[in-house]
Amino acid sequence: MAVYTDVTAEELSAHLARYDIGELLSFKGIAEGVENTNFLLHTTGGSFILTLYEKRVDPADLPFFIGLMEHLAARGLTCPQPVRMKDGATLGELAGRPAAIVTFLDGMWIRRPQVHHCAAVGRALAQLHLAGQGFALTRVNALSVPGWRPLAERAGARADTVAPGLAATIAAELDHCERSWPKSLPTGVIHADLFNDNVFFLHDQLSGLIDFYFACNDILAYDLAICLNAWCFSADFEFDFAKGSAMIAAYQAVRPLSGDETAALPLLARGSALRFLLTRLVDWLYVPPGAVVTPKDPIEYLKKLRFHQKVASPTEYGLA
Amino acid sequence: MAVYTDVTAEELSAHLARYDIGELLSFKGIAEGVENTNFLLHTTGGSFILTLYEKRVDPADLPFFIGLMEHLAARGLTCPQPVRMKDGATLGELAGRPAAIVTFLDGMWIRRPQVHHCAAVGRALAQLHLAGQGFALTRVNALSVPGWRPLAERAGARADTVAPGLAATIAAELDHCERSWPKSLPTGVIHADLFNDNVFFLHDQLSGLIDFYFACNDILAYDLAICLNAWCFSADFEFDFAKGSAMIAAYQAVRPLSGDETAALPLLARGSALRFLLTRLVDWLYVPPGAVVTPKDPIEYLKKLRFHQKVASPTEYGLA
Repeated sequence: MAVYTDVTAEELSAHLARYDIGELLSFKGIAEGVENTNFLLHTTGGSFILTLYEKRVDPADLPFFIGLMEHLAARGLTCPQPVRMKDGATLGELAGRPAAIVTFLDGMWIRRPQVHHCAAVGRALAQLHLAGQGFALTRVNALSVPGWRPLAERAGARADTVAPGLAATIAAELDHCERSWPKSLPTGVIHADLFNDNVFFLHDQLSGLIDFYFACNDILAYDLAICLNAWCFSADFEFDFAKGSAMIAAYQAVRPLSGDETAALPLLARGSALRFLLTRLVDWLYVPPGAVVTPKDPIEYLKKLRFHQKVASPTEYGLA
Repeated sequence: MAVYTDVTAEELSAHLARYDIGELLSFKGIAEGVENTNFLLHTTGGSFILTLYEKRVDPADLPFFIGLMEHLAARGLTCPQPVRMKDGATLGELAGRPAAIVTFLDGMWIRRPQVHHCAAVGRALAQLHLAGQGFALTRVNALSVPGWRPLAERAGARADTVAPGLAATIAAELDHCERSWPKSLPTGVIHADLFNDNVFFLHDQLSGLIDFYFACNDILAYDLAICLNAWCFSADFEFDFAKGSAMIAAYQAVRPLSGDETAALPLLARGSALRFLLTRLVDWLYVPPGAVVTPKDPIEYLKKLRFHQKVASPTEYGLA
């Protein structure tokens, strides 16, 4: 939950005068997103999400994030669509924060996804990768391989307080990834954080993707590896072959993987597991005083990493 | 902000099958209310608020609160209207908590109320007092005079850490209120917590009253005294005669005060200031570890109390 910044009805009504979305009927701070403050607005024009970008988001990245949502929505992907002001701008300022309004998406995220949900995610991810082509702006993935060593150093020996031997496991895996990371796979815009709570379903159909605030340019198949980790493990962190193979097949039906991409998938999955292990570990070890967000358990990603380390062939993920 | 209890889409959809409000389109935990967990639901039938009652609410009080909203709404007061399930019940259970769904009210609360807002509140309060007549259930006000001494004892000498001499001020005021509190003024259902954030306005017209979770049976004019304290002081806690007199006049246009009520108003205002001083003081002194709600400054109510202590005649509030 996260309402870091307070907005008054008076301020918000004045802000909405810059838009053509009708008159404000109500607004509620919603407990969604850990990085920014979000309000659900009802206006005579419909429902919208107002986001105030808090200090963890670099304002220099906002044109990329907002432009990307506009680019993807224009190409038929169901994602929040930034609303333009009367003067054409999509980014304003409210309560001292950069602020944007996007369309509201119906749908709910699924706590216990089934095989067909994983297939729907694979399909939508491939559609996102195709729709992202031609987007003019670029953004480096700060959480790709070069970003991992500083995280590992930040955790340091304290990693072993979370699990015995974890620091050594991380050091070895980091060496392996840095040494072997593929250099010539197809790249493009990736979501980079397409976890359960960022995918909405309605009547069991995928109804939209949200939260593009980790989106960046990187290896496309790495995004699929992130989704395999996020969606295709059981509650006790065993790989679910039915879910994994369904996700990969649905992805390939829209965007077939090359031989190189297929061959690299086990390594990309290891890297993805390491990336979330590291960020969760650092969040876990350095909970800021007064934090209202409970850090996620890093151990989940250690278990996933151990699975990928043992994978001998991409066929173990269900690749034909 | 307050989302204490997590609800899954799967659980909520199953719960909604007991109602006739259409199919679930989305739900968001909202940062509203400090006692309970609230979700804003969009269904094919409209917008609703789902409340899960947390442990600070006594389940034995829920029939009073929910029945009261239904009683008042049926009499034309704009307040959340409990939605009946197909079997007629208004109270269910979800995620291990008592749960109710009420209609969604458009409108926003006003941060800096003006004179006409105060008049609208006075009018609505009197309408609430009239509409409450005939409501069959009763609830003792646990925060009326007999409830104040235990709070004062809980704060004890620690009150002086908040303001020098505060413990003695409280002791003397408590003696005065216990000795002089009126015994024969008209009673009925009161809201007991009609602060700014519990009154919605739309196009500068009062559009609804919310949060009936302090409602109880008590002296009607005491409710007006609570509103005078909550609405009719300036930002530096000086009484605003224009606001106070407008509120009282608007109240009297709907429900004229008797001579006894008028005469008692200064004392009721002192008692009301003492009540909020005490609850805020205790919350301030005993912030629970890990609290996500910032306690409100008790000093505001000490200043209001000092104003009322000096009032020599009800005419100082604008009473004719």
